[in-house]
Amino acid sequence: MTNTKKPLILVTNDDGVKAKGIRALIQAVRPFGDVVVVAPDKSMSGMSHAITVKVPLYLAKVSSEDGLEVYKSNGTPADCVKLAINALLKRKPDFLVSGINHGTNSSVSVHYSGTMGGAREGAFYGIPAIGFSLCDYMPDADFTAAAPICADVLRSVIAKGMPTGVYYNVNIPKGESVKGIKICRQAKGHWAEEFDKRIDPHGRNYYWLTGEFENTEPDATDTDEWALRNGYASLVPCRTDATCYETRQTLL
Amino acid sequence: MTNTKKPLILVTNDDGVKAKGIRALIQAVRPFGDVVVVAPDKSMSGMSHAITVKVPLYLAKVSSEDGLEVYKSNGTPADCVKLAINALLKRKPDFLVSGINHGTNSSVSVHYSGTMGGAREGAFYGIPAIGFSLCDYMPDADFTAAAPICADVLRSVIAKGMPTGVYYNVNIPKGESVKGIKICRQAKGHWAEEFDKRIDPHGRNYYWLTGEFENTEPDATDTDEWALRNGYASLVPCRTDATCYETRQTLL
Repeated sequence: MTNTKKPLILVTNDDGVKAKGIRALIQAVRPFGDVVVVAPDKSMSGMSHAITVKVPLYLAKVSSEDGLEVYKSNGTPADCVKLAINALLKRKPDFLVSGINHGTNSSVSVHYSGTMGGAREGAFYGIPAIGFSLCDYMPDADFTAAAPICADVLRSVIAKGMPTGVYYNVNIPKGESVKGIKICRQAKGHWAEEFDKRIDPHGRNYYWLTGEFENTEPDATDTDEWALRNGYASLVPCRTDATCYETRQTLL
Repeated sequence: MTNTKKPLILVTNDDGVKAKGIRALIQAVRPFGDVVVVAPDKSMSGMSHAITVKVPLYLAKVSSEDGLEVYKSNGTPADCVKLAINALLKRKPDFLVSGINHGTNSSVSVHYSGTMGGAREGAFYGIPAIGFSLCDYMPDADFTAAAPICADVLRSVIAKGMPTGVYYNVNIPKGESVKGIKICRQAKGHWAEEFDKRIDPHGRNYYWLTGEFENTEPDATDTDEWALRNGYASLVPCRTDATCYETRQTLL
């Protein structure tokens, strides 16, 4: 007997179930299997790998058609993945894709990103997981060039697999043409935060978080930042194991 | 001219500025320098490395005495660190300590933890940063045995330094006696999530996140989980670079 089951693909994001980016991703991955979407009911940008422990989580069906079911939740992207796996789906998803995020998640932003938190949560469950981000924060960003890259990366993962404990961080430059996909490492750098300080009507200071990313190794050509600045999509394989083995060796 | 400046130690946590754990940590690190506390005004457990971009941040002085200033903010632990460095302090802190968390942050919980998000944010700024957690979730947990371990680890970091891009995840077992500190790697495992499903008064299903940690390598003796189960405090040096270099090599 041949197993004719299609792959089950779980989709999430952090911009919310109605975002343009997740709709582009859904269309890009539908040809590869049955698609179930569980995504936040509102924007969860910057929510990292946060989980919700103090308020109850809801899960509501948005729509259902052949090969595509869409659900929304009040939880974070990581919550959505947990709910999908533990409270909704009858079998473990074969693949997880998260995004397409409105805005870059390159370099250290992998740690701030709700999109990448959702992907990493999938990796915790042993699911090959990929987070996709477009370097365009606008709600009406153009995902035309990004969608085929998502399809290419997923096709490659379906063919070649992904090691346990690994997930991919894929960033795609803005614009009509992308030169290709570069396998990269995470650029060293950080957000040089500047706060916009204001005074509220009650005389209290308050602060809006702003800031610009500072690449502290602008000349390195093997980083995600370099790839993106030179017209390539970047793919950084990331690991769930945060241990710094080199440092560990010096401490033992 | 001798530089007689004491080290500047920034303290944060995710249980909130009033938690018993942060008070224990403050007392443990005060002998090592001038201490500035910037911590959330409420519990931020499970907030990971989240940052606040959609609401303004406030920063309010709680108390001030010789060598100890305490501030609270409505932001996450990572926000608190950003505010401290960019909006409050005149010089960059020499060290950052986060915690002592009420509850374990071993293994993959390093990714969920607001305590560790605060520590990692410090590492982004090149500050030697340590997150401390006690394996006791109770608000009235006993930090008597944990506090000297925090002091020991900070003393060692002051003496030996810490590589750039590294931060320490220190977990301390519950109980009166701790056998010592083991240098460990992050145990492989994940939270086997079970949701407590209920029905609200309006007939809608809702879910409380529960679950138990599953160590998938219980026999390995070099992990943080093993150390904690055997009466030792665990110290995992972690890195801000999420790249999996082994996988990258196979993809190039």
